[in-house]
Amino acid sequence: MEQVSAQNNLVIAVDAMGGDNSPRIVIEGLALAAEKNPDVRFLVYGNEDAVYEELKRFPALQKVSQLFHSPEVVHNEDKPSQVIRNKNTSMYQAIDAVRSGQAQAVVSAGNTGALMAISKMLLKTIQKIHRPAIVSIMPHRYGRYVMLDLGANTECNAVNLAEFAVMGNVMAKHALGLEHPRIALLNIGTEEMKGKEEIHHAAQMLRSANMDINFIGYIEPHEIAFGKADVIVADGFTGNVALKSIEGTAKLIRSMIKDSVKESWLAIMGLPFMYFAAKKISATMNPKLYNGAMFVGLNGLSVKSHGGADGFSYSVAVNNAAKLVRQNFVPTIRAELENIDLEEISQDIFYEVY
Amino acid sequence: MEQVSAQNNLVIAVDAMGGDNSPRIVIEGLALAAEKNPDVRFLVYGNEDAVYEELKRFPALQKVSQLFHSPEVVHNEDKPSQVIRNKNTSMYQAIDAVRSGQAQAVVSAGNTGALMAISKMLLKTIQKIHRPAIVSIMPHRYGRYVMLDLGANTECNAVNLAEFAVMGNVMAKHALGLEHPRIALLNIGTEEMKGKEEIHHAAQMLRSANMDINFIGYIEPHEIAFGKADVIVADGFTGNVALKSIEGTAKLIRSMIKDSVKESWLAIMGLPFMYFAAKKISATMNPKLYNGAMFVGLNGLSVKSHGGADGFSYSVAVNNAAKLVRQNFVPTIRAELENIDLEEISQDIFYEVY
Repeated sequence: MEQVSAQNNLVIAVDAMGGDNSPRIVIEGLALAAEKNPDVRFLVYGNEDAVYEELKRFPALQKVSQLFHSPEVVHNEDKPSQVIRNKNTSMYQAIDAVRSGQAQAVVSAGNTGALMAISKMLLKTIQKIHRPAIVSIMPHRYGRYVMLDLGANTECNAVNLAEFAVMGNVMAKHALGLEHPRIALLNIGTEEMKGKEEIHHAAQMLRSANMDINFIGYIEPHEIAFGKADVIVADGFTGNVALKSIEGTAKLIRSMIKDSVKESWLAIMGLPFMYFAAKKISATMNPKLYNGAMFVGLNGLSVKSHGGADGFSYSVAVNNAAKLVRQNFVPTIRAELENIDLEEISQDIFYEVY
Repeated sequence: MEQVSAQNNLVIAVDAMGGDNSPRIVIEGLALAAEKNPDVRFLVYGNEDAVYEELKRFPALQKVSQLFHSPEVVHNEDKPSQVIRNKNTSMYQAIDAVRSGQAQAVVSAGNTGALMAISKMLLKTIQKIHRPAIVSIMPHRYGRYVMLDLGANTECNAVNLAEFAVMGNVMAKHALGLEHPRIALLNIGTEEMKGKEEIHHAAQMLRSANMDINFIGYIEPHEIAFGKADVIVADGFTGNVALKSIEGTAKLIRSMIKDSVKESWLAIMGLPFMYFAAKKISATMNPKLYNGAMFVGLNGLSVKSHGGADGFSYSVAVNNAAKLVRQNFVPTIRAELENIDLEEISQDIFYEVY
């Protein structure tokens, strides 16, 4: 096993034990990510024997990886309050590598609540941010969009939502390459006074002259899929409901198409004709291409892969982490926030209104 | 024009001017509904000339309809606070026919907020109900489910949610023909303490021994599509977000399939092979089959058709209204609620917990 030297400019810590088929899937994902990112080195945390068994199958990956033995594992049913006290898990140790500066990002396919709790405790929230958020990139009809919060904060006030908008703006610039991403607040109507008070207040803040943001107003959930906005901002409860409703519907339709084709010999004969059309849809909608939710608002990048990811989709999460590190994602968010005082904007609006 | 006599046991009032292509679509829908429901008579409100122009195309419908001239129309941009004061609109007058006992249900494809506001004012909330809700029936993988509230109440407390569960239970028994519908609260996790406090409190109420309800706990949005529950209960904001996310995704996938097939001559050649498979999916998922959201919790049935409905899907909304009147839907809800005191259950739980 090579020693990962300090001169390697991009180091990612990996919780090899998180996810449904770990460490096998994790190592397969790293092998693919290593091919795509020759500048990245990996610090791999997990059961030494089990991980080595997988790692030795990929000599090229082995060369850029350093394996650390973590005696314990975070389980899906573990509570955040327990896991933050156990320093022996692979998840804790991988995150701690970012805290200590050995790595610039951490990737885990383990328990989301645990990953959030440990990341928050070890990496700490960026000074001006009140609440970190879970963010992800998803496909719409004509491209991709950034959505947050996807579940870190059940209840949010207007300042929280405005902070999410600022972070989403940076994310869309970096990850989608947009100069002026269109930012929208998720709501159940587009009229001024529809929906909840905190959303109205956040809209007022985002319209403030002090905000360097392309705020386009409210977006309704059925408009998301058609590319009306580049960044969708919601509280964690609402964002999670929208995300899971979208995922469930896509899964339902996929399974219905599969079943009804299977049950008809005529349709089976037609399948070859559909090959290129199906491939095209899959190239846009394939959920494997969108793996990797990020915790934003922390002093360090913490990336959550889907627990049921396969090797390819795990590699997508790792690639995304590498990309955001290269683009100085965290320092940019910090810098953007230094120029604006959301609390002050909120106070100004509050006094104007009442 | 025949006089609709009092001996006709089922009378439905219709706002002929609501919706995108009214009154044409409305009258086409009524004609289809009349064929299916020979026992139903219609009181049709709208611009007399415009409605008559359409009505005369359907002599059979004409025989069971009475036309009333309403000089004004509710527009999509009208505010609820305005429309409740204008007694001259077709929507107001159609709802008023239910209030006065001339009709047992009203159907409109007009402005939802206006329909809710006028219905609430004229029909009044059932005595024990604090808040009426918008409810709809939708398809899942293996059948159909009832979901409420879909947008009438942005914020709800635990008692509101429990009331929705009771009403949804009656709805599922009547409309889906289930003896013990499985009731679930929509949440972002299935663990006890996930999500919001009012949801936890509502869950405690629904587990109470005094409730004659088959409560199965929390459901996550992606599980809805796979038939885990027969009744999904949520506050109006969350329910609306889930509904519109589901609709938007289904629409996205439909449009992507259409486009990618259109762009490939090979796929076009394969289309005939797919005919029966596509027909089967459409028989389950066709949104036209699920038209008609109802306001429940009122002393009378008020049904909202989609504004963009075509004649067939408008007729589905009318058929549903007729079916629920025949099944004594409103009196059953009233009777079910007489046997339980949700406020008391809520108080009991509150004292137990604190």
